[in-house]
Amino acid sequence: MASLKSWVTIPPRSPFSLANIPFGIISTESNSTPRPAVAIGESVLDLSAFSLGGGFSKLSQIAPHLKVFDSPTLNEFAALGRTTHGDVRKYLQSVFAEDGPLSDILKDNKSLQEKALISISTARNHLPLSIGDYTDFFAGRNHAHNVGTLFRGPQNALNPNYHHVPVAYHGRASSVVVSGTPLTRPRGQIILDPTAEPKVPTFSPCRRLDIELELGMFISRSNKLGKPVRVDEAPEYIFGYVLMNDWSARDVQMWEYVPLGPFNAKNFGTSISPWVVLADTLEPFRAKGLDNPVELQSYLKQGRRDFALDINLEVTLRTTQGNETRISHTTSKNLLWSWEQMIAHHSVTGCNLRTGDLFGSGTISGDGSGTYGSILEQTQGGKHPVKLDNGEERKFLQDGDSIIITGVAGEVEGGLVGFGECTGQILPAVEESYWQ
Amino acid sequence: MASLKSWVTIPPRSPFSLANIPFGIISTESNSTPRPAVAIGESVLDLSAFSLGGGFSKLSQIAPHLKVFDSPTLNEFAALGRTTHGDVRKYLQSVFAEDGPLSDILKDNKSLQEKALISISTARNHLPLSIGDYTDFFAGRNHAHNVGTLFRGPQNALNPNYHHVPVAYHGRASSVVVSGTPLTRPRGQIILDPTAEPKVPTFSPCRRLDIELELGMFISRSNKLGKPVRVDEAPEYIFGYVLMNDWSARDVQMWEYVPLGPFNAKNFGTSISPWVVLADTLEPFRAKGLDNPVELQSYLKQGRRDFALDINLEVTLRTTQGNETRISHTTSKNLLWSWEQMIAHHSVTGCNLRTGDLFGSGTISGDGSGTYGSILEQTQGGKHPVKLDNGEERKFLQDGDSIIITGVAGEVEGGLVGFGECTGQILPAVEESYWQ
Repeated sequence: MASLKSWVTIPPRSPFSLANIPFGIISTESNSTPRPAVAIGESVLDLSAFSLGGGFSKLSQIAPHLKVFDSPTLNEFAALGRTTHGDVRKYLQSVFAEDGPLSDILKDNKSLQEKALISISTARNHLPLSIGDYTDFFAGRNHAHNVGTLFRGPQNALNPNYHHVPVAYHGRASSVVVSGTPLTRPRGQIILDPTAEPKVPTFSPCRRLDIELELGMFISRSNKLGKPVRVDEAPEYIFGYVLMNDWSARDVQMWEYVPLGPFNAKNFGTSISPWVVLADTLEPFRAKGLDNPVELQSYLKQGRRDFALDINLEVTLRTTQGNETRISHTTSKNLLWSWEQMIAHHSVTGCNLRTGDLFGSGTISGDGSGTYGSILEQTQGGKHPVKLDNGEERKFLQDGDSIIITGVAGEVEGGLVGFGECTGQILPAVEESYWQ
Repeated sequence: MASLKSWVTIPPRSPFSLANIPFGIISTESNSTPRPAVAIGESVLDLSAFSLGGGFSKLSQIAPHLKVFDSPTLNEFAALGRTTHGDVRKYLQSVFAEDGPLSDILKDNKSLQEKALISISTARNHLPLSIGDYTDFFAGRNHAHNVGTLFRGPQNALNPNYHHVPVAYHGRASSVVVSGTPLTRPRGQIILDPTAEPKVPTFSPCRRLDIELELGMFISRSNKLGKPVRVDEAPEYIFGYVLMNDWSARDVQMWEYVPLGPFNAKNFGTSISPWVVLADTLEPFRAKGLDNPVELQSYLKQGRRDFALDINLEVTLRTTQGNETRISHTTSKNLLWSWEQMIAHHSVTGCNLRTGDLFGSGTISGDGSGTYGSILEQTQGGKHPVKLDNGEERKFLQDGDSIIITGVAGEVEGGLVGFGECTGQILPAVEESYWQ
């Protein structure tokens, strides 16, 4: 890797150090066309302008593919494959390096700087990729156990399949939104009195609106229908990672989810952070995941033990008045399955993955108070409210609340690899009169 | 509507009568570019060539939109809205009518006929729309009851939510394929001995490969995230209908589906018929659906009682030797929810629908032997094999078997409205050595 020193201003605690170089899609006031960019410190490099200005002239292997930087999504770039992603990242690290051999490309080219290097505060983020299918896994075993206990009691918390199958469900792709997009509190059918028989639902705004702290992963390449991806081939299919909040309407979920799984409880919105941290970038932060006590099926057997990623995750609740309380702090090591295993399982039937498909890890919870990835777990189903720093309490989310997820790997100042923020604010539900 | 007589040859029992005019995407040997077309009798009209040749010159309202006929999918045409779909259909009916006022457009224009009117046998079908999200409902109550009985016993066959909630799950969009595409028998984890404890799965080709007879519906327009579609607005969101076979690996499903629903049991392939029958076309075939014994929530209340469609559905199994046995015959009246109710429910949370989204009805079964939409029901979980006309038996599908679904509305020869065929053949599973 290039020197950790850059001529671009990078605050010591910036998640966008020279070790990172995450990719996203931006637009600006002066140019409303969404286009690829990378984040560096408190700046973004507009890759469309950079490419047009000859910025990639010393990276010969990208020459036939420069049009990928004139696309409104990263799909075309992702499809170029992991080697190319790595080449482009390393090249940009050299371009940004204080003492690199490529200083004439941008450091000494004020004209190109003016066109391509933009303050991050003036860049508007868009969804980084056009998402084909979105699949949400359930690999956070602590969460699966905690929620299973609440929904089905401690005896049936983890189903018999849990340690054998990377359990997942197909999610809703249309409502995946980029960080900063507000979401309307969903309405749905809920059961006010769970002890009454027969159960009669009420049409109501969700009263148990929750979050799910997850990592997301974007697929870079496609496999043909009928041709599974083996676990050892799977790394080639990983483009990179984002933070994810899979907002959940727990009362809607409780009533609807048998027998076909969550549907309306999840389809009103899923937020992701705007910058995709490349697969290679997180390799130095590999760590051991959760132990699996059972013998795995052959197609899931993976040589590496350090199949998880060690990313420090934090969840903060911000009230309408602006008060912020950190309500969770955990690590993404708390997963039972690796991304490679998820890919192998998803495709073992022959299911075809496509560039831009999004996988969610499932909710990531630690073990103990203050480490949970959902409010449901932290409040034990709404029984023990979370205390906020301003004296307020929350059993679930209120209108106007914002959730801010951050994730950073590494400890070394100046060398942090992070995602920035994944935020979203809850707007009031549609009025009932809308239906009358 | 125009006269029922056409100058184009239409066999009396053709599903593509002048009353139909379904839309699809075709290519031909001489022109491999996928492009829109309509089916009429044993011909297709290439709408790209027709439009280029001035075929739409007497339909002024389509003039600003002619580029939709140069698209590789019907998404742009669908997005024009139901009024325009109706206008184009009626116009084409007049173009094809024996004694219509538009005989100069095609009937008397041999040059344009040569360019645009193609034998259906030489047209290759493609997926009619680019599918954003695919959602599969569970509105076939007979099926829900029968399968629920097999999976959970008769006491718990229908869950308490069933009559209140249009139950659905998000399906896999990438593996929806057009009729005629062969599918590979999926592999997965199955339980050979369901009585053993603890349950230990085996990695195996699916041994209980099944079909699901469904109707599919394509969404024409989008709603904004956070803005539900009311049931009375929902007709505007329906582009048209197709036949669907939601192939299912029952043994994989049985092991994986708790608690998040079917995943790998369904994601290896879903077949649809190639021709989209427009929403307006099926209006004359409205019929009463299944009665719902409960008081519906306000957002699901629909004035019309004839919310179902009366389409005769047949399922035929063809062996590798070419022997064909009709294994099911039912009607699409066997649904508990209307398409409008499904749309209202799907979006009540604020979930955004998009042009090209595909809804499945859920498996359509009648009441009694020979009317079931899945083999699972017909054989009572594999206990009572289906007898084929050639003396063979099937508990589930064998390699080489093809399934042919047909659906036709109406009784009048020369005026039938049908879908053509939705077919697919099962290829042998990937060998286990692939993973070694």
